[in-house]
Amino acid sequence: MNEALETAQAALAAANEAKFIANNLWLLVATVLVFIMHLGFATLEAGFVQRKNVVNILFKNVMIISIGLLTYYLMGFNLMYPGLNEGGFFGFSGFGLIPPDNGMTAAYADYTYWTDFIFQGMFAATCCTIVSGAVAERIKLVPFIIFCIFFVAVSYPITGMWKWGAGWLDARGFYDFAGSTIVHSVGGWGALAGIILLGPRKGKYTERGIQPIPGHSMPLAAVGVFLLWFGWFGFNGGSVLSADPALVSLVFVTTSLAAAAGAIGAFICSFILFRSYDLSMVLNGILGGLVGITASADSVSVTSALIIGFVAGVLIPLSVSFFDRLKLDDPVGATSVHLVCGIWGTLAVALFGKYDEGVGEFSDQIIGILAIGAFTFIFAFVLFLILKVVFGIRVDEEEETAGLDIREHQLSAYS
Amino acid sequence: MNEALETAQAALAAANEAKFIANNLWLLVATVLVFIMHLGFATLEAGFVQRKNVVNILFKNVMIISIGLLTYYLMGFNLMYPGLNEGGFFGFSGFGLIPPDNGMTAAYADYTYWTDFIFQGMFAATCCTIVSGAVAERIKLVPFIIFCIFFVAVSYPITGMWKWGAGWLDARGFYDFAGSTIVHSVGGWGALAGIILLGPRKGKYTERGIQPIPGHSMPLAAVGVFLLWFGWFGFNGGSVLSADPALVSLVFVTTSLAAAAGAIGAFICSFILFRSYDLSMVLNGILGGLVGITASADSVSVTSALIIGFVAGVLIPLSVSFFDRLKLDDPVGATSVHLVCGIWGTLAVALFGKYDEGVGEFSDQIIGILAIGAFTFIFAFVLFLILKVVFGIRVDEEEETAGLDIREHQLSAYS
Amino acid sequence: MNEALETAQAALAAANEAKFIANNLWLLVATVLVFIMHLGFATLEAGFVQRKNVVNILFKNVMIISIGLLTYYLMGFNLMYPGLNEGGFFGFSGFGLIPPDNGMTAAYADYTYWTDFIFQGMFAATCCTIVSGAVAERIKLVPFIIFCIFFVAVSYPITGMWKWGAGWLDARGFYDFAGSTIVHSVGGWGALAGIILLGPRKGKYTERGIQPIPGHSMPLAAVGVFLLWFGWFGFNGGSVLSADPALVSLVFVTTSLAAAAGAIGAFICSFILFRSYDLSMVLNGILGGLVGITASADSVSVTSALIIGFVAGVLIPLSVSFFDRLKLDDPVGATSVHLVCGIWGTLAVALFGKYDEGVGEFSDQIIGILAIGAFTFIFAFVLFLILKVVFGIRVDEEEETAGLDIREHQLSAYS
Repeated sequence: MNEALETAQAALAAANEAKFIANNLWLLVATVLVFIMHLGFATLEAGFVQRKNVVNILFKNVMIISIGLLTYYLMGFNLMYPGLNEGGFFGFSGFGLIPPDNGMTAAYADYTYWTDFIFQGMFAATCCTIVSGAVAERIKLVPFIIFCIFFVAVSYPITGMWKWGAGWLDARGFYDFAGSTIVHSVGGWGALAGIILLGPRKGKYTERGIQPIPGHSMPLAAVGVFLLWFGWFGFNGGSVLSADPALVSLVFVTTSLAAAAGAIGAFICSFILFRSYDLSMVLNGILGGLVGITASADSVSVTSALIIGFVAGVLIPLSVSFFDRLKLDDPVGATSVHLVCGIWGTLAVALFGKYDEGVGEFSDQIIGILAIGAFTFIFAFVLFLILKVVFGIRVDEEEETAGLDIREHQLSAYS
Repeated sequence: MNEALETAQAALAAANEAKFIANNLWLLVATVLVFIMHLGFATLEAGFVQRKNVVNILFKNVMIISIGLLTYYLMGFNLMYPGLNEGGFFGFSGFGLIPPDNGMTAAYADYTYWTDFIFQGMFAATCCTIVSGAVAERIKLVPFIIFCIFFVAVSYPITGMWKWGAGWLDARGFYDFAGSTIVHSVGGWGALAGIILLGPRKGKYTERGIQPIPGHSMPLAAVGVFLLWFGWFGFNGGSVLSADPALVSLVFVTTSLAAAAGAIGAFICSFILFRSYDLSMVLNGILGGLVGITASADSVSVTSALIIGFVAGVLIPLSVSFFDRLKLDDPVGATSVHLVCGIWGTLAVALFGKYDEGVGEFSDQIIGILAIGAFTFIFAFVLFLILKVVFGIRVDEEEETAGLDIREHQLSAYS
Repeated sequence: MNEALETAQAALAAANEAKFIANNLWLLVATVLVFIMHLGFATLEAGFVQRKNVVNILFKNVMIISIGLLTYYLMGFNLMYPGLNEGGFFGFSGFGLIPPDNGMTAAYADYTYWTDFIFQGMFAATCCTIVSGAVAERIKLVPFIIFCIFFVAVSYPITGMWKWGAGWLDARGFYDFAGSTIVHSVGGWGALAGIILLGPRKGKYTERGIQPIPGHSMPLAAVGVFLLWFGWFGFNGGSVLSADPALVSLVFVTTSLAAAAGAIGAFICSFILFRSYDLSMVLNGILGGLVGITASADSVSVTSALIIGFVAGVLIPLSVSFFDRLKLDDPVGATSVHLVCGIWGTLAVALFGKYDEGVGEFSDQIIGILAIGAFTFIFAFVLFLILKVVFGIRVDEEEETAGLDIREHQLSAYS
C-alpha cells in the first residue's frame, strides 16, 4: 500500500513537471517567434522607404529591439507588473529584476519567471517599431532614440499594466487578449503624434495633388509581412500563456484566417477604389487582419474571425486614403494598420461575443480604447514636442533630399 | 488504498494530458514551419524571375496562401477528410467546418481538431505555389487566381483523400508519408498543364538555340531555398502526426541528409554537364532532395536517404535540360523539382523498403503515381483550357515585354 | 492494492515518457533554429561583400551546410563523441553512424540518438561558415571546399571532443557552455589562418591608407544578423540538452540581453572612435555579444550577461581597427566577432563565476583557449598552405577585379 501511494505521488509530481515543461516550452518558442517580428518590421519598413533612407531605418530597428529589451529589464517589466491589488493606475516595483534564487526556482503555474520576462520583453519593443515606420525618412536619429527610450520604458508599461498588470481597466472588464490596443494601437498613437509634429515628407502633398513615393523594394516589404504573420503565431498563440491544446490551436486558426481574410478584403476594396491589383494594400491588409484579430483571437468563432479580418482588410485602403486626405504622411501605413485596425479589433471583442461573460462589453472596450489612446497620444505628443524644442526632430531639407543614409550614417544601403 | 488508487488515477490522467500537450505542441510548431515555406516559395520564385515581373509573383504568392487557407476552411478540408469507410474515391462532409463545441474539446489521440485543420491547411496552398513559379512571367493574374481557387479547393483535396483521407489508394497499399506525390507532384502536374497551354516566354527558345533568361536576384532565390529547407522540418517532421521522439528525430535526419546529398548530386551532375559551378542547379538540387525524401522520410535508413537525395540531385540538371529540349519553359524549375523528384521519391519507397510490410510495394506506388497524376493533370489542363477560352490566360506580347509589374500592378519592384 | 500499484506504475511510465517527449522536442526545435543560422551567415556575408562576388559566397554557404552535415554523418560525429574514458585526446568510433535498431530505440536520458546527431550536426558546419566570410572575394572555390571538408570533418570534431566528448579539457575543468571557443573561436582561428595566407583584397590597403570596401547590401546584412540572433536561441537554448524550464529560460534572457548590450557597446564605441552611427559595427556588436555570452549563458547572472555583452560590443570596433592596422583583411569582420569575442566570452566564464564550483577557473579557461587555438590555427594554416602549394588558393588579379561570380559561376547575382 505504501509503495503504491509513494509511486502514485511520484507519478503525479512527474506528470505535473512534464506539463510544466511543455507549457513553458511553448512560451519560449513563442518568444522566439515574437522576436523575429522585429526582423519583419525592419524589412517591411526598409522595403517601403526610399533607397536613400534604408540604412537609417535598419539602424533604428536594430537599436529599438536592443533598447527595448534593456529598458524593459531595467524598469519596464517592473512598471507593467508591479504586483498591485486590483484596480491600480500606477505602480513600480523598482529598478532591475531581482527574482529569488536568480530566477531558477520562482515560477508561475505554467512558466518560469525568466520565461515571463523574456516573452513580455519581446512585445515591449514592438510599440516603438510601429512608430519608426510612420516617422521614417525625415526624423533625426538621436531624438528618435530618446523618444523610444521613454516610450518603451515608461508609456507602454504604464498603460499595459492597466490591463495585463491587473490594473483598473482589467478590473473594469476591458478585454484585449494579445494587444490590439495595448500593443498595436499604442504604437499607432505614438506614430500619429510623431507624424503630426513632423509634417509630411517633401514632395508628398503638392499643389498637383498627392504624389505617391513608392517604396524601394517590394520583395523586402513582402518578406516583412510573411515574417510578421509567422511571428504572430507566437504573439497571439503565446498569449494563451500555456500550451493549452484547445485554446492555442483555436488561436492559430482564428489568427490565420483573419490574416487571409484581410488580404481578400484589401484586395477587393483597393480594386474597387483604385482599379488596380495593389500589392502594398494587400500586404497591409494581411497585417490589418492580424492586428484586428489580436484582441479576440482566443474567444471568437472562426466565422467571426473571418469577418473581423475581412473588415480590417477593407479598412486599410479606406484609412490610407483618409490619412492622405488629412495630409498625415505615413510612409508604411503604420497608423492604418496598427491604430485603425487596432481600434477595430478591440471593438470587435464586444461585437462578436466572448466566452467569459461579463467582460469585453462595448462600454468597457470604448473606455479602454479612449483611456489608453489619450494617455499614449498625450505622452508621445509632449515627448516629441520637448524633443522638437530642445533638439529639433526633423532633418534639414538638404539632408532629406540627399537621404538620411549618407548624412547620418555615411553609408549607402547598396553599392 | 483508496488514496493510492485515486492519486494513481489522477497521475495517469495528468501524464496523458502532458503527452497530449507535447504532441499537439509539435504539430502547432510544425504548422508555423510549414507556413514559412510560403515565404520560401515567394522569395525563390521572385529571385528566379526577371526584375520586371517581381511584384506580380509576390502578389500571386500572397494571394495563394490566403485563398488556400480560406477555401480549405470552406470546403477543402471536408473534401479531403470526409470520414469515409475504407476505399472511397470521393466524399464531402459539407461546406465550412462545424466542429463540436467550437472545436475546443474534439480531439484526435494526439492533437485537437483545429490543430489538424491548420496543419493540413498550410499544406494545401503549396500545390498552387508550385504552379505559380512554373507559369510565371506570362500568365494573366485573374485567370491564375481562378485556377488556384479550383485547384486547391477541389482537385488537391480529392486526390489527397485517396490516401490521407483513408480512400481507395490507402486501402490499396499506396504509401506517401508526407506528400512526394500527394503534394509535390500534384503541384508539378498542375505546373506542366499550365506551361503546355501557355507556351514558352518570348525569346526563350529561338533559332539560335535556348536562351537562358537569368533570374533577377540570386540572394532572394537562396533565401527561398534555405527557408524551404527550414520549413521542411515541419512538413516532414509534422507528418509523423505526433512528437514521437524516435520517428520525428529519424525524419529530421533523413530529411536533412537527403537535402545535403541533393546539393552534392546536383553539383557533380551540373559540373559534368555544363562545366560550371551552377548555383541555381545546386539550389534546386537541395529542393529535389527534399521532395525526393518526402514520401519515405519516416521509413528508410539514413543511408537510403542519402542515396534518394543524391539521385534526386542528379535528376535536376538532367530534367531541366530535358524539359528545355521539349521547349517546356519553366522559369524556376518547378516541374523538375516537384514533378520529377516527386515521382522519384514515391518510387523510392518501394526500392528502399518500409518498416511496415505490405504497403508501398512497387505496383502500389506506380498505381498511385499514375492515378493521382492522371486526375490532376486532366483537371488542371481542362481548367486552364476553359480559362484560356473564356478569358485568355496569356498576357499580350507588349505586356510581356514591358513586364507584368507595370501593366497589372502599376508598380515596380524596385525604385 | 494491486490495481493501485499497477496504475501508479503505468502513470509513472507515462509521465516519464511525457517528459522525454517534451525534452526531445525542444532539442529538435533548437535544431531547426540552429539550421537557419546558416541562412543568417549566408545573407550576412552576401550583404557585406561586393556585388560581383555574391553568387560565390552564396554558393559556398550552400555547399558548406551540405558538406558539413554529410561529413559529420560519415565521420565527424564519431570523432567528436568516440565514447572515451575521461581525459582522452583523440578517439574515433568508425565511419558512418550505426545506431542500434536504426536509432529508433537508443536514447539518452532526454533525447534520442538521432536528435543528438542532428543537433550536433547543425553546429558542425558553423565553423566553416565563419571562415567563408573572412576569406571572401579572393579565394578559389575548389580549394576552399577541400579546406571545409577537412576542417569540419577532422579539426572541429577533434577539439570539440576535448570538451564535449568528455576529453582531456573536460577532465581539466575547462568550461564552454555552447561553444564560444569550441565553435566560434575555432571558426575564427581558421579564418585568421586563411586571411594571413591569402593576403588582403586588392585596393584595400593602399599608400593613401585603408580604403573601405563597402558591402553591397545592408538589408541583406541586417537580415543575417536578425536570423543569427533568432537561431542563437536554439544554439544556446538547445545546449542545455533538455527543456529544463529554469535553465532554458535563463539562457534565453542572458543571450538576449548580451546581444542587446552588444549593440549598445558597439554603438557607443564606434561613435567615439569614428563619430558616426555605423550600422555594420552595431550589427557586428550584436553578434559579438552573442558569441561572448555563449560560453556562460547558463551560468551567469543577468547583470553579468549585460556586462559580457557590452564589453563584447565595445571590442568590435577596436578589434576591426586592430586587424586593419595589421593589414589582415576580413570583409565581414568574422575574426573580430568570432575569434576576439569568442576568447573574451571564454575568459568571462572565469570572471563572472559559475554555479558549479571547481570548473571554469581562469587557468582552465586559458589552457582551453590556447590548446584549441593552437591546434586549430596550425591545422588550418598547414591545410591552407598545402592547398596553396598544390592548387593555389587565390584567384588571379584579373578574376578578382572582374568578380568571382562571372568567372567561377558564369552568373551575376542580379540582372
